[in-house]
Amino acid sequence: MSNMKKTSKKDLPEIRECHTASTGIFFKVKKILYSQSSAYQKIEVIETEDYGRVLFLDGLVQTTERDEFFYHEMLVHPALIFHPSPENLLIIGGGDGGALKQVLRYAIKHVWLVEIDSQVLEVSKRFFPWLTPSLKDKRTKLVIQDGNDLIQKTGEKFDVILIDSSDPVGPSTCLHQSDFYKRLKKCLNPKGIVASQAGSALYQLEHLREKNIFLKKIFKIVRFYTGPVPTYPGGSWCYVFLSDRIEPLKNIERDPPPGLKYFNLDAGKAAFALPNFLREKLT
Amino acid sequence: MSNMKKTSKKDLPEIRECHTASTGIFFKVKKILYSQSSAYQKIEVIETEDYGRVLFLDGLVQTTERDEFFYHEMLVHPALIFHPSPENLLIIGGGDGGALKQVLRYAIKHVWLVEIDSQVLEVSKRFFPWLTPSLKDKRTKLVIQDGNDLIQKTGEKFDVILIDSSDPVGPSTCLHQSDFYKRLKKCLNPKGIVASQAGSALYQLEHLREKNIFLKKIFKIVRFYTGPVPTYPGGSWCYVFLSDRIEPLKNIERDPPPGLKYFNLDAGKAAFALPNFLREKLT
Repeated sequence: MSNMKKTSKKDLPEIRECHTASTGIFFKVKKILYSQSSAYQKIEVIETEDYGRVLFLDGLVQTTERDEFFYHEMLVHPALIFHPSPENLLIIGGGDGGALKQVLRYAIKHVWLVEIDSQVLEVSKRFFPWLTPSLKDKRTKLVIQDGNDLIQKTGEKFDVILIDSSDPVGPSTCLHQSDFYKRLKKCLNPKGIVASQAGSALYQLEHLREKNIFLKKIFKIVRFYTGPVPTYPGGSWCYVFLSDRIEPLKNIERDPPPGLKYFNLDAGKAAFALPNFLREKLT
Repeated sequence: MSNMKKTSKKDLPEIRECHTASTGIFFKVKKILYSQSSAYQKIEVIETEDYGRVLFLDGLVQTTERDEFFYHEMLVHPALIFHPSPENLLIIGGGDGGALKQVLRYAIKHVWLVEIDSQVLEVSKRFFPWLTPSLKDKRTKLVIQDGNDLIQKTGEKFDVILIDSSDPVGPSTCLHQSDFYKRLKKCLNPKGIVASQAGSALYQLEHLREKNIFLKKIFKIVRFYTGPVPTYPGGSWCYVFLSDRIEPLKNIERDPPPGLKYFNLDAGKAAFALPNFLREKLT
């Protein structure tokens, strides 16, 4: 049984994210720092007490000052420690700069960041400046474009592709479909790895099951892994590691960089040990 | 970045748990099934859409129909697979019957369940009947008593003691203090193991750090482990494994029983791999 001290700050207004029609998380609002609609979505930055600054897109939590490291470290580091020579990388989405920051901890040559919404980048630079200096790194190639469009037109080949998308609603819908992954594979070097956020282990189980089925038709190696993200629906988040040649856990090619808050080799390996209810759906 | 479909059912009332003064979880209420105060606490059982029946004590989520298995399986099975011959067991707290149900999956001889509040047991039998048949098992010895009192007076020695308490507020405060663990050790056989819920990995970090310091003065082996519990604060829950002789992960004495929804050997071992922010506080 669990328990926490119960108090309330009735004087402050609230903002909430509905995880489903019936359940969700709420935050007391210290200050609304930004609230505008871009061509793609409503963008809000809220100052909260517990999570610091929180970025909402269309009313849904994307990044918080306090817990972004859980998500960004688990999205990026497994692919980077298992790839033998990651030189040319692509991040699809990730306009907050958090995944890019993790990628640039490694001695890579180039990383492309393709973000559909330039306003997300501007808001992140203004309100999450500790995540965005990496946008100015000379290895970073910033492209404002639909990721799905870029991978159809680019002649580039990548060693690692990271999909830091929102969920299968709104502008990210196509990034969760079979055709997108088929196109993606054409941009991947033979030893390449794709790592993608894959959704809530609790609320999106059926979607995960379907994704596993179509991914197995495209990639020889499809390995789901999980990690906690306190402000994401259900608290336990899924990611998927895709490759034709690289089996995760088999060869660790390099140690993770120093200074990480979540990721270490043991925690990284442990993330691939799925609980029974996920094993049943995903193997 | 994450995202979920946003809808709302404005017609239904809500119940919420404040994780802190500023953040928490809410549930739409389909029906209030029970709401009374016992000698110790306010007991409520709420029918919710997403989590089925939810037991609240003093307004705080203890057990939900949908996610109780995350917690009860992770509390019970590590101790049970690493102990060489668990015969006589004690559960302190756990009036919902969920931990007892997991314990009785093994060929043990006796398990004592000491619960301070008989009304929690009655409510659980009535509203969570799938958890409570184990209360009638002939190996179960049910005692309505303060666990702290029982361990001072009993002449019994136990192989495994499981602490399924609420947090360090209200009637469970003493169950989180150094003196309690010193007394507990006197009831433990030399090869004995204690496994206890230890709180939120996100919100109770300082409390975990302090607990680690005093536990190391009492037990030779103090190993924290974690697992997700979607409705508990922060979504990522800590447990602690205590012994003088048994090092977890070294010898797996038996396979976990069939039919578990969360726990398997790989997930059990993985739970001991702490992320950096916990390693720094707890080692």
